Amino acid sequence: MVNTLLEAFNKTTYPVVGHGKRDIQVLKDAFDELDGTIDSDIYGTGKVIEDFQAKIAAYLGKPSAVFFPSGTMAQQIALRMWCDEKGIRKIAYHPLCHLEIHEQNGLRELHQIEPVLLADKNSLITLEDVLQMKEDIACLLLELPQREIGGQLPAYEELEAIAAHCKAKGIKLHLDGARLYEILPYYGKTAAEICSLFDSVYVSFYKGIGGIAGAILAGEEAFMTQSKIWKRRQGGDLISLYPYIISADQAFDERLPKMEQYYHDAIELAAMYNDCDGITTRPVVPVSNMFHVHIELPKESFEKLLIPVFEETGVGLTGNVRDFGEGSSYYEVSLGDRYADIPKEQLGQAFTLLNQKIKQIIA
Amino acid sequence: MVNTLLEAFNKTTYPVVGHGKRDIQVLKDAFDELDGTIDSDIYGTGKVIEDFQAKIAAYLGKPSAVFFPSGTMAQQIALRMWCDEKGIRKIAYHPLCHLEIHEQNGLRELHQIEPVLLADKNSLITLEDVLQMKEDIACLLLELPQREIGGQLPAYEELEAIAAHCKAKGIKLHLDGARLYEILPYYGKTAAEICSLFDSVYVSFYKGIGGIAGAILAGEEAFMTQSKIWKRRQGGDLISLYPYIISADQAFDERLPKMEQYYHDAIELAAMYNDCDGITTRPVVPVSNMFHVHIELPKESFEKLLIPVFEETGVGLTGNVRDFGEGSSYYEVSLGDRYADIPKEQLGQAFTLLNQKIKQIIA
Repeated sequence: MVNTLLEAFNKTTYPVVGHGKRDIQVLKDAFDELDGTIDSDIYGTGKVIEDFQAKIAAYLGKPSAVFFPSGTMAQQIALRMWCDEKGIRKIAYHPLCHLEIHEQNGLRELHQIEPVLLADKNSLITLEDVLQMKEDIACLLLELPQREIGGQLPAYEELEAIAAHCKAKGIKLHLDGARLYEILPYYGKTAAEICSLFDSVYVSFYKGIGGIAGAILAGEEAFMTQSKIWKRRQGGDLISLYPYIISADQAFDERLPKMEQYYHDAIELAAMYNDCDGITTRPVVPVSNMFHVHIELPKESFEKLLIPVFEETGVGLTGNVRDFGEGSSYYEVSLGDRYADIPKEQLGQAFTLLNQKIKQIIA
Repeated sequence: MVNTLLEAFNKTTYPVVGHGKRDIQVLKDAFDELDGTIDSDIYGTGKVIEDFQAKIAAYLGKPSAVFFPSGTMAQQIALRMWCDEKGIRKIAYHPLCHLEIHEQNGLRELHQIEPVLLADKNSLITLEDVLQMKEDIACLLLELPQREIGGQLPAYEELEAIAAHCKAKGIKLHLDGARLYEILPYYGKTAAEICSLFDSVYVSFYKGIGGIAGAILAGEEAFMTQSKIWKRRQGGDLISLYPYIISADQAFDERLPKMEQYYHDAIELAAMYNDCDGITTRPVVPVSNMFHVHIELPKESFEKLLIPVFEETGVGLTGNVRDFGEGSSYYEVSLGDRYADIPKEQLGQAFTLLNQKIKQIIA
């Protein structure tokens, strides 16, 4: 199937989102300057994996961390261990949580864990939702930011109150922190400060950080030791994970200092979207490097309008628009290295043109 | 803990086993000459993964193949799907099968599948074992060669008879073919001929082939389509698997033609071992590139004897000797690229010296 929007996006001189192309140059760049005699990790042991795990554990303020090939695996394992520890096969999370919508029911099919869905799918989980929950659960999973609703965040005080409640009730609190780095500027907290509210934490290395793949699960020493047994069981204890680890490590060092910039870029870009008729961003003022763009037009008519904007200005706003029902559509914007390379004049032209074209249709 | 045998082995000029060091140069070599604009695979799609899957499917003579990060994951998933299809939560395999001894009970803990252990742990599974099995099973797993007993193989006719019996009884037959390539010279068959006896087949790319990690599961179209759902569930559907795929592809092309040579090298080397007092190989005449060396001395005294042999001749026979009970020990030998680089004179000297030293102790 030909996706013409994606084709038009791929031809633009100035793609707005992300760090760059996902081609093998990413790997070549990570390894080109390295000495070839660096030993592979071997089944979870060796300097390359142990050093990186220690580095990220320290960054997250947790006693121990284990590198996993995927966040799917890392999070299922964390929830399974909390369920086993509590003797309860129930956990709670948001209806648009990664485990609920992107993992083909792995949590139920592999671990026989039943999720309790908290909050309306278009809202954040609130303290009220947690207080009113009737089910006995082993663990509550919070995703910060809540990606599928535009990367929204609760107030930090609400987060603290939820954590305090869970602690008092003996409910384990797990952080889906795939995009944890991206929320630090908004909260004005360190990763360790935020993670101190959680019993276990997962972070990703191929989202904001821009690595190739891979994840870290962090927590107490005994918990993480046990997680290695599950990593072996689930088929994640590869003889060599270094292609992911080495590229993650470099991307971490390179991009962590840029998170503040990505965040401010997102605020700037969202304002340009909100100045267009029939377009609103969610949240209106971003709290991280990401937001969703909601358009009062169906996917197909908006795509028809976008393609000439890309072609005339060379600015690529998105390669993927999705229907949102009732004649509206939306897409996700996640900012990285590319945004800084776009001349402001070009970007302004793109939005002027976009706004003109929308006005013609909506008016 | 300092392992002095391993240290001595690592210092030798002529290590006898394997292809080479597992350092990051393996990855650098695989990517150095490649054009950086090659696109990453994305969650199991894209040219780099689809082309390789098609290539290996054709090689194995199966309609479809899926690349997995690990054999552990690929095999559990195959067995789970056969159990689901048959509505029976039992499979049968050898007592020293990878799933039984190296996967922390993943098959039981994740998939609630009970294994029936066939044959004595020191013997191959025979047709007789299969005929006498009383349990109702969904699938029989055969590992060719049977690694943990020195890489032994049944006669091909016995294999055919087992396959015919399973087909008649409606028992699915799965091949643990981690080392499938290595047995083709002995059987004088193509991979596709051997795989035609099996309903599903797993092959590895970091053992005989010498890649970095990764596995292929192959079978019928519908079965493999379903396996992708399980791959997602189990956390193996990474956004990018290309670091493993590209290196596996190159190693496959480079080493497949050398399997005949490795096999003959193993026969030659085993004969040298068998000429030593107190040493026997298992099998006496290898049927692949691998065999086990059994010594009538405990691990510690044999290691003391080996280290000066390594130091005086520069030939490294093994880095890892294990106790085998009753004052005996053993180690695995798996031949690859390195063997061809050893001057025959040097190798002869090592065995002469080894034999002298053993005679002094045993006599």
